[in-house]
Amino acid sequence: MREDESSTRRSPELGGPTDRSKLRRLPERGHYDLETVHRLIDEIGVGTIGYALEGQPRLTPTFIWREGHRLYWHGSSASTTMKDLAAGIECCVNLYALDGFAMGRSGFHTSVNYRSVTAYGTAHPITNENEKLKALETFMEHFMPGRWAELRPPHQKELRALTLLGMEIDDASAKTRSGMPKDDADDYDLPIWAGVIPVSRAAGEPEDDPRLLPGVARPDYLDDIRLG
Amino acid sequence: MREDESSTRRSPELGGPTDRSKLRRLPERGHYDLETVHRLIDEIGVGTIGYALEGQPRLTPTFIWREGHRLYWHGSSASTTMKDLAAGIECCVNLYALDGFAMGRSGFHTSVNYRSVTAYGTAHPITNENEKLKALETFMEHFMPGRWAELRPPHQKELRALTLLGMEIDDASAKTRSGMPKDDADDYDLPIWAGVIPVSRAAGEPEDDPRLLPGVARPDYLDDIRLG
Repeated sequence: MREDESSTRRSPELGGPTDRSKLRRLPERGHYDLETVHRLIDEIGVGTIGYALEGQPRLTPTFIWREGHRLYWHGSSASTTMKDLAAGIECCVNLYALDGFAMGRSGFHTSVNYRSVTAYGTAHPITNENEKLKALETFMEHFMPGRWAELRPPHQKELRALTLLGMEIDDASAKTRSGMPKDDADDYDLPIWAGVIPVSRAAGEPEDDPRLLPGVARPDYLDDIRLG
Repeated sequence: MREDESSTRRSPELGGPTDRSKLRRLPERGHYDLETVHRLIDEIGVGTIGYALEGQPRLTPTFIWREGHRLYWHGSSASTTMKDLAAGIECCVNLYALDGFAMGRSGFHTSVNYRSVTAYGTAHPITNENEKLKALETFMEHFMPGRWAELRPPHQKELRALTLLGMEIDDASAKTRSGMPKDDADDYDLPIWAGVIPVSRAAGEPEDDPRLLPGVARPDYLDDIRLG
């Protein structure tokens, strides 16, 4: 991802890019509008939470979903990471999707097609049980539409064993690249193959749990799982 | 990725897990051995660099490759991120791959299959031109084996326009999950579909650059591009 620091910074709706969210390199690849930021978060769905403990950076990958201008992610209440984050420290959240290789006629003009979004804010735990349940339903419906209604409903002790974090987005930016490589003018005369190899996530054939009850069929919604 | 904080901490070869790299949750999913850490970095190839500026976390996604116990990534010399990192600050690097959905009979036992590796260290710029060139060749050969030899070789000004960072791994850990969901004993009696949906990255049909010279064929190595 040469040329592709998905550093970040603030949508116009939030008051324009801030120092940390402003894209200095290749600003034509940057988007600050809220609609783009929200859409990419919804599309990609998996990302990395970054935070600092006594100045030391830490990262944790997780599923991320959204309601309005708030991001959510969850984890075990026993997790040190979740406890650290629940204390209310600043987070940087990035989600990226690799969309392809833009293969130019030189190494320098070999690039990638991607979508990337970075958001800043401070996480806080959602402790209200109804709010927690509703957010978990939203989560599952976003990734596996149709599944929630079929599942054995959560036990209270399961809800307690999960920490749900919410983070209002303070600043955000998105950065994307698509299309063909851009070569030096002279290099177009070289007999070297150039073009794009599209890349996406693909689902394989579902594998039944060997302990499935007889007669339980694969639900249609397996085709609609969000792959990010 | 409930249950899945890919926090981190130190291979036995490096002296055992440190406080920051020790996996406290579900330690059976954790691996500290160097061979596993190295293998996962090589397999996944794309990740996120985390660092802190005045205590504020920052993330940037990028391609990451390895030689021995040193990680490499590169970016534009004009990039603020690369300048910040080249100053020699502490980094946390995470690479993850989503391998599937392990769909249990409850939301609580809905999980993901994944590979994740986290490494800590301090990055430094590689300025020696030969070393830089060799590392870029290693990079391309790792992701697109066979391509480097065909490309127009780098110009000196291109090499100068790229910052190459190297990071010796100080601590690292890997965390993985695979296989079927693990449901509560009672839930196996429910008539709910459960199983695994495998997920992987897939390449689409190559798209030729419209400016390709006549007669230039798609090289065979397009089938061997590393997708992460």
